[in-house]
Amino acid sequence: MTESFKKLIESLEALPSIGKKTARRIVFYLLKKRELAEKIANGIKEVMEKVRFCSVCGGITEEDPCKICRDEKREKKICVVEDPMDIPVIEQTGVYHGYYHVLGGVISPVDGIGPEDLRIDELMERLEGMEEVIIATNPTAEGEATAIYLTHRLKEKGIKVTRIARGLPPGSSIDLADSITLSRALEGRKEL
Amino acid sequence: MTESFKKLIESLEALPSIGKKTARRIVFYLLKKRELAEKIANGIKEVMEKVRFCSVCGGITEEDPCKICRDEKREKKICVVEDPMDIPVIEQTGVYHGYYHVLGGVISPVDGIGPEDLRIDELMERLEGMEEVIIATNPTAEGEATAIYLTHRLKEKGIKVTRIARGLPPGSSIDLADSITLSRALEGRKEL
Repeated sequence: MTESFKKLIESLEALPSIGKKTARRIVFYLLKKRELAEKIANGIKEVMEKVRFCSVCGGITEEDPCKICRDEKREKKICVVEDPMDIPVIEQTGVYHGYYHVLGGVISPVDGIGPEDLRIDELMERLEGMEEVIIATNPTAEGEATAIYLTHRLKEKGIKVTRIARGLPPGSSIDLADSITLSRALEGRKEL
Repeated sequence: MTESFKKLIESLEALPSIGKKTARRIVFYLLKKRELAEKIANGIKEVMEKVRFCSVCGGITEEDPCKICRDEKREKKICVVEDPMDIPVIEQTGVYHGYYHVLGGVISPVDGIGPEDLRIDELMERLEGMEEVIIATNPTAEGEATAIYLTHRLKEKGIKVTRIARGLPPGSSIDLADSITLSRALEGRKEL
């Protein structure tokens, strides 16, 4: 095995969800698909050169501030998400027309992540002129804890705070739902 | 989501065992670990420039023929493997001191791979002066079928042909072994 080959396998192993076997398989695959290899190497360089985190919302962008933050026609709402990748997913729904704010994670004492490690102060500075903050952290234990913490901090500022609904995912069935999901669905029931 | 970002995710998805979610996670990870990103991009370019398949054995190398093929002190044996990656694994054992020959796969009618798609003619041309051919294809249905085919072809040339032993992996236990493994272990028994 050559030196450059070994080094590349080691670098790939440092990526999330890539083990030694997958790294090896990838490098062999690339040796056979040289065009793809070229594409990936250039693609990584291009993304590293061009893509930045937006200094306002924390989303990913090629221009700072990003297109969404620059759009003055958006509704005066901020949707708070954990991860930059959550933004395109929510945009795709077409039902939300406000701004975003990326926390960059959730409060997780086990992992040593406290509120000071998240982009919460940056959020507080964006509230002026806003009508509502929608907390769209994930429906996990940490996501819920972070939502509760944010609610306290935001209500002190007198802004309307909402949380995305948790309940049964459309298309699922009650007999297969776990009890936490079902409890949330019951708690979140609406009058018809 | 930016254009360069999307393009990179698509390229990564073309790799084996990388799905859309993993591709996204990798690109985000790289945005945070720019040094690693640089290393991988340069690593891919370096491997593509330097690493070639050896024209003799089919293994990977930076010089052609490879170090092993150039080594005249090796025992006059050829170990036949499916994949270039099998070579370093066998070398590591330290018990084999001969040459290698990579088939580049196995006979698999289901996948439309016949003997003519493998490096078998190249093997036939390397037999002169050799004492033994060790067939080290994987102990799978296709690997065994390929071994049988190769044995026929090689015996016609009057060369000694052996197959690596299949049996219980050291450290395993009989009560947990499947019956194919156990049958092989019984068939391959040796007098003590």
